[in-house]
Amino acid sequence: MCENCRSDVEHLSIHGTSRRKLMKVGMGLAAGAVAVTGMAGAASAQETSVANRTGARTVDGFGVFEAAGPVQRFDIPRRAAGPKDVVIETMYCGLCHSDIHTIRGEWGPIRAPLAPGHEIVGRVIGVGSDVTRFRVGDMAGVGCMVNSCGTCENCLQGLEQYCLNGATWTYGSPADVPGGYTQGGWSRGIVVTEDFVIRMPQSGDHAARAPLLCAGITTFSPLQHWKIEPGMRIGVNGIGGLGHMAVKLASAKRADVTMFTSTAEKVSDAGALGAREAVLTSDEAAMRAHARQYDLLISTIPQSYPVAPYLSLLGLDGTLVSVGTPLELQQTMGGSLWGQRRSIASSLIGGIPETQEVVDYCASHNISADIELIRPDQIDEAMNRVVGKQVRYRFVIDLQAA
Amino acid sequence: MCENCRSDVEHLSIHGTSRRKLMKVGMGLAAGAVAVTGMAGAASAQETSVANRTGARTVDGFGVFEAAGPVQRFDIPRRAAGPKDVVIETMYCGLCHSDIHTIRGEWGPIRAPLAPGHEIVGRVIGVGSDVTRFRVGDMAGVGCMVNSCGTCENCLQGLEQYCLNGATWTYGSPADVPGGYTQGGWSRGIVVTEDFVIRMPQSGDHAARAPLLCAGITTFSPLQHWKIEPGMRIGVNGIGGLGHMAVKLASAKRADVTMFTSTAEKVSDAGALGAREAVLTSDEAAMRAHARQYDLLISTIPQSYPVAPYLSLLGLDGTLVSVGTPLELQQTMGGSLWGQRRSIASSLIGGIPETQEVVDYCASHNISADIELIRPDQIDEAMNRVVGKQVRYRFVIDLQAA
Repeated sequence: MCENCRSDVEHLSIHGTSRRKLMKVGMGLAAGAVAVTGMAGAASAQETSVANRTGARTVDGFGVFEAAGPVQRFDIPRRAAGPKDVVIETMYCGLCHSDIHTIRGEWGPIRAPLAPGHEIVGRVIGVGSDVTRFRVGDMAGVGCMVNSCGTCENCLQGLEQYCLNGATWTYGSPADVPGGYTQGGWSRGIVVTEDFVIRMPQSGDHAARAPLLCAGITTFSPLQHWKIEPGMRIGVNGIGGLGHMAVKLASAKRADVTMFTSTAEKVSDAGALGAREAVLTSDEAAMRAHARQYDLLISTIPQSYPVAPYLSLLGLDGTLVSVGTPLELQQTMGGSLWGQRRSIASSLIGGIPETQEVVDYCASHNISADIELIRPDQIDEAMNRVVGKQVRYRFVIDLQAA
Repeated sequence: MCENCRSDVEHLSIHGTSRRKLMKVGMGLAAGAVAVTGMAGAASAQETSVANRTGARTVDGFGVFEAAGPVQRFDIPRRAAGPKDVVIETMYCGLCHSDIHTIRGEWGPIRAPLAPGHEIVGRVIGVGSDVTRFRVGDMAGVGCMVNSCGTCENCLQGLEQYCLNGATWTYGSPADVPGGYTQGGWSRGIVVTEDFVIRMPQSGDHAARAPLLCAGITTFSPLQHWKIEPGMRIGVNGIGGLGHMAVKLASAKRADVTMFTSTAEKVSDAGALGAREAVLTSDEAAMRAHARQYDLLISTIPQSYPVAPYLSLLGLDGTLVSVGTPLELQQTMGGSLWGQRRSIASSLIGGIPETQEVVDYCASHNISADIELIRPDQIDEAMNRVVGKQVRYRFVIDLQAA
């Protein structure tokens, strides 16, 4: 293990021949080897040369060798940085329920070995020759995508998640990378083309920002698309990693937010998260009392579920946006929809520009996730706690922990 | 039977004492007893007194004595006209698939005896003292509603179909009428409060306009609400009474319309109805070739059905508006929705102002339904042909036929 950066990844040679590679470090850039250790140190204003580590290397990954297998460490080969690539030393990565679905085979067969993880925050340790937005030492984020065609009409409007030629997901996607498919952020390093790397704040609680890259954008995007306004009545259904971010974001935008949860113990968190009230979904009388009250319901339930009880909460032209599952939304009753011209919709994470927007929005509004930090060897236990609704509200893996 | 009007309803006494009741007949009003026979005769410009028949009476109804029973004639008592009521001698009423679902008990238990029918066109034979928009002799239409609270926020914006206190449907709804619940347009006369009566053209093919009052408004309203524009790619799924009106209306608005039908024999009707093409839904290759092509899909399928094959036809932000059934929209897959931020919605007929709008729009654009006219004694046979997809495209009952 390197004594400087506490990583057992193979260290890269220093490139220092071109002006770009011999980078000038200014405000906001941590200097030298310490810069790549993941420590959120104070920036140095001194000009100095820093390592620009662009060579191929092997990093620790944490994932499964078969669907539903135990999480184990394995080697992930990462490519040498191309001209547009950003090399990131991973510091933190969230544990999203979709990671669990995927590596347990609940969303279909998987490529293995597979390290999931798509809420990645780390520090830039290398940049390709054509990279313009990042310098070594910068904080960087990677969400659910690492590439897309860039030329279809959806990509051209910054909606890469809907790429008509198929986005490259952060893990499990076929790609021209070592191994033939992508490996995610439950690993100690990743190489991503600049266009899919998000600028993160240089200081503060980096771990608590990791969930913005999936849970944050997945809930921010529908609030934007369905035009949330101050005073609008918003329901959030399912208060986990995504749901608690939806409550925080909607209340930051001064909506009138109600939490709907199946977990009695979460009811008392309503005020702290920014909601006006919380309703226990098993309380039929309370559910009836809230019927036809909401303009928008962000539903984050992570499995197939009956939507009928939630549709009834919507008023005229209300929309239930289900962001938690690709599986069937049961009991989609035509009569419940036509009763008040309601809609059921879904949206998928958000495009890269909007992902940058939510990170910036959260920085300026002092919003981050409520997290519990774990080591890689605690992932299996943590996944069980996620399924058991026992996390408040997101596990984040410290990839630099032993 | 009355020799003037060919009806065997009890005739009402003539009211002629007040100025309103002793009406001045101008252009657009047929004169005298002939006016109430349903003949679309030339209007008389002569001023003359006409009968204003506002008393209680009994009319022939055609309906069932139990769910799924045979259609039989029975007496329907109609109330005396109140100050705001319009008394209509029914000429024509459409046979909507929802009538079949209702009287066959497919949408739940029914009140019986029950005469359905909510595409009602007839001539005004009486008006209450406070009626301002209708005169005896006018052509009038009644759709799916005959009342609502008039005071809730939805009613106040002309969306009476979403009345928060519950609209009074044209048949089978509890109401302060003889018998305690409403009886519909498969009858030789009806009394409706003025606010729920639509002004119909005085001349032309009255029978072919009857379907505008349900099939027309039910498809016009979503085209308006989801902001159809020239050139927009619109799919219409299910080409029956509603579907063929959707094709006509969308093409009148210069959308680029594709018909999706399960009936091979309907494919060749595409051009005549105004569609650019027709796709047989059983042709999987053709369905794949049309994937992600549509902005809006009006789906009129009248029973529970799997929506997944149709969702795939929608492009980014596309909406499937299912207007044909209150039952479950099966296979509402979260993944298909989030794949292109698609929505499933439904809308219910349309409000009274918009119903007037579609009637006026069709008059000015020379649009009416393709109908097959039947006698009341042919209803049972006609219902079987509707279920068998054998009507092009709407049965209309001639209530003045023997």
